[in-house]
Amino acid sequence: MPLIVQKYGGSSVADAERIRHVARRIIRAKEEGNQVVVVVSAMGKTTDELIGLAGQVSERPDKRELDMLLSTGEVVSCTLLTMGLRSMGQEAISLTGAQAGIQTDSVYSRARITGISTKRITRELDQDKIVVVAGFQGISEEYDITTLGRGGSDTTAVALAIGLSADRCEIFSDVEGVYSADPRLVPEARKLDEIVYEEMLDMAALGSKVVHPRAVELGWEYNMPILIASSFNDNQGTLIHGGVSMEVRNKISGIAHDSNIAKVTVIGVPDKPGIASSVFEALAAANISVDTIVQNASIDRITDVTFTVGRNDLDSAMEVVKSVAESIGARKCVSDNTVGKVSIIGSGIQSAPGYASHMFRALSDQNINIELISTSEIRITCIIEGAKVSEAVRTLHKAFELKATEV
Amino acid sequence: MPLIVQKYGGSSVADAERIRHVARRIIRAKEEGNQVVVVVSAMGKTTDELIGLAGQVSERPDKRELDMLLSTGEVVSCTLLTMGLRSMGQEAISLTGAQAGIQTDSVYSRARITGISTKRITRELDQDKIVVVAGFQGISEEYDITTLGRGGSDTTAVALAIGLSADRCEIFSDVEGVYSADPRLVPEARKLDEIVYEEMLDMAALGSKVVHPRAVELGWEYNMPILIASSFNDNQGTLIHGGVSMEVRNKISGIAHDSNIAKVTVIGVPDKPGIASSVFEALAAANISVDTIVQNASIDRITDVTFTVGRNDLDSAMEVVKSVAESIGARKCVSDNTVGKVSIIGSGIQSAPGYASHMFRALSDQNINIELISTSEIRITCIIEGAKVSEAVRTLHKAFELKATEV
Repeated sequence: MPLIVQKYGGSSVADAERIRHVARRIIRAKEEGNQVVVVVSAMGKTTDELIGLAGQVSERPDKRELDMLLSTGEVVSCTLLTMGLRSMGQEAISLTGAQAGIQTDSVYSRARITGISTKRITRELDQDKIVVVAGFQGISEEYDITTLGRGGSDTTAVALAIGLSADRCEIFSDVEGVYSADPRLVPEARKLDEIVYEEMLDMAALGSKVVHPRAVELGWEYNMPILIASSFNDNQGTLIHGGVSMEVRNKISGIAHDSNIAKVTVIGVPDKPGIASSVFEALAAANISVDTIVQNASIDRITDVTFTVGRNDLDSAMEVVKSVAESIGARKCVSDNTVGKVSIIGSGIQSAPGYASHMFRALSDQNINIELISTSEIRITCIIEGAKVSEAVRTLHKAFELKATEV
Repeated sequence: MPLIVQKYGGSSVADAERIRHVARRIIRAKEEGNQVVVVVSAMGKTTDELIGLAGQVSERPDKRELDMLLSTGEVVSCTLLTMGLRSMGQEAISLTGAQAGIQTDSVYSRARITGISTKRITRELDQDKIVVVAGFQGISEEYDITTLGRGGSDTTAVALAIGLSADRCEIFSDVEGVYSADPRLVPEARKLDEIVYEEMLDMAALGSKVVHPRAVELGWEYNMPILIASSFNDNQGTLIHGGVSMEVRNKISGIAHDSNIAKVTVIGVPDKPGIASSVFEALAAANISVDTIVQNASIDRITDVTFTVGRNDLDSAMEVVKSVAESIGARKCVSDNTVGKVSIIGSGIQSAPGYASHMFRALSDQNINIELISTSEIRITCIIEGAKVSEAVRTLHKAFELKATEV
């Protein structure tokens, strides 16, 4: 019998009515002849509410305690969903992360899964039950409760699918799938039937928030197919997989964007070994995620280093960079928090160099100035004026004929 | 170093401010030179809210699922309290019932504690930490989460105190201690400094809701002293213990009452073996708790059986009894939901028969008619007109000079 793991996000189980709706969907999957394991997130805003409560009691809540507190959110939703299933006559059982055998390290608030012991789940599945697992959480070697951090429930689902050798992992949310661009910006954006892991990683990292990159990475590593679909309707979703099909290769899959970034430039940096690392080590130590990094070719052994960060991190980043700049003898640091980012993504980019020039031309034809360029094997990213991001996304969507390619 | 177990009820941890207040009290107990283990209930109305949520999803929620759902309430309060303690610079750690080693049977919603494995708690205490345990819950042999039912957190606290060979168990709530009568009825009611387990059981069972009888029974069995006090002030509470002191023996400790009862009489019952059991077995099967039972001496082998139940149970009780009455050949059943109960409690009652007549005389002097009488070794209970319960309590409090006995 095929085994599938389904994951439902917070908005899909936000209230009793939604929970009963999801229960009916799950029963349908069972009746179609599958063994079904379900992973759920906390209901709606529960996690934020619990964090708020912690903040009222302590200015800086201890991470072990916070993990144990937050883990209750998923226990609530998984027991309620199980009650819903049982009230419809379906045998089902809820399991905490610990009961489901999700073993992690002890790095509270962002634990990594170290192993999965599937004995209990398998025993329950053998009794023809639907197994509902609390997402986002696990248990350390010391039997302490941990949480997996952002994207935790997606990761739980993919990890369980791998541990159980499931046929597929299905991730349901309020988003129908992966689009060729953000449908709010490009109404004619096309929903992709399929996308390969690598492209999805770039889409996800660049602001396409349908599935967490960490879960995609895990799926990629073990070649577990992941279906992204909506829990609110039955429309076909997007299958993320590793297969190389003619359809997927050699074309642009989509346009990703992020409007919420800022740019920092360290000007007049002496171009010698260790300089870049001293800047970025200091940022990492301050827990600031750096995105695109560009270092221009040096002139007279002096260069400029530019990078982007999330806008919320700009102030702390400037503080860190200013102190480092002085110690490395850089001339000065400047920042700009009005920039944005737009990328074209597709496995075919490297093998067809025409894409880059086509992209730059399309943007310049619209009078959109490119401030920075960064590329990877499957992606070309341009940093542009923030106010022009939407226009750029629409322009590129049209320029690469994404609407038409598969109709 | 002395070891004490403190338990704080739902109203004592109802919000962030109350939690921080309780944290300060706990730290004071630690600073006074004690090792401290704390047991907490769920915040305020949390449990009721979770039951409400379950009711929205399922008409008859599965008990295993409900237990796992409800257990989250105490995990939330125990992690928040621990965060509060840590924010005040006190090392502390929260433990779920499972982590604290509370082993139970698998009778969901009213599990019994089968054993306590104190290894983890002891390890944390040895590191000079305050250990905060989620009350009301445990774990079964199959690693499923169970709850202990009504009075669960009191029971957790007393059981942990016994398992850890603590010096004392302290139960804090919004009540200052055990009174010689309900202070709302008798303003001059005296708070008792001490009371023996047996008397406390009768006080508790008869409506004095400061501590659950189950916890008192457990304390009695293992001779664990239990202090009842308020978390809202520092007034001296009441110590429940097993010691026989001159002060405690040979006097009335207090007046208990219950206004929320109803009386059922089965009239004209043939007086032969098995008749009583057929009535009360049927009631037990319908899950109706029967309180006082009185059967009069039979006349011509015909007798009447009277018992009291909670008013909420009267309709179901009458339904059950009517069908049984027919089968046992009773003449008819009548009920009265306007009765109440008043009792005098004291270890000295049996050895001093004057108490009964003194009680009946005091009531009759006030023109309060006694409908039923039931006695135990340490208690005399009268069923009277419900509207006269308050007056009866005041009358008896005065008649037995409870105000004056220890001033």
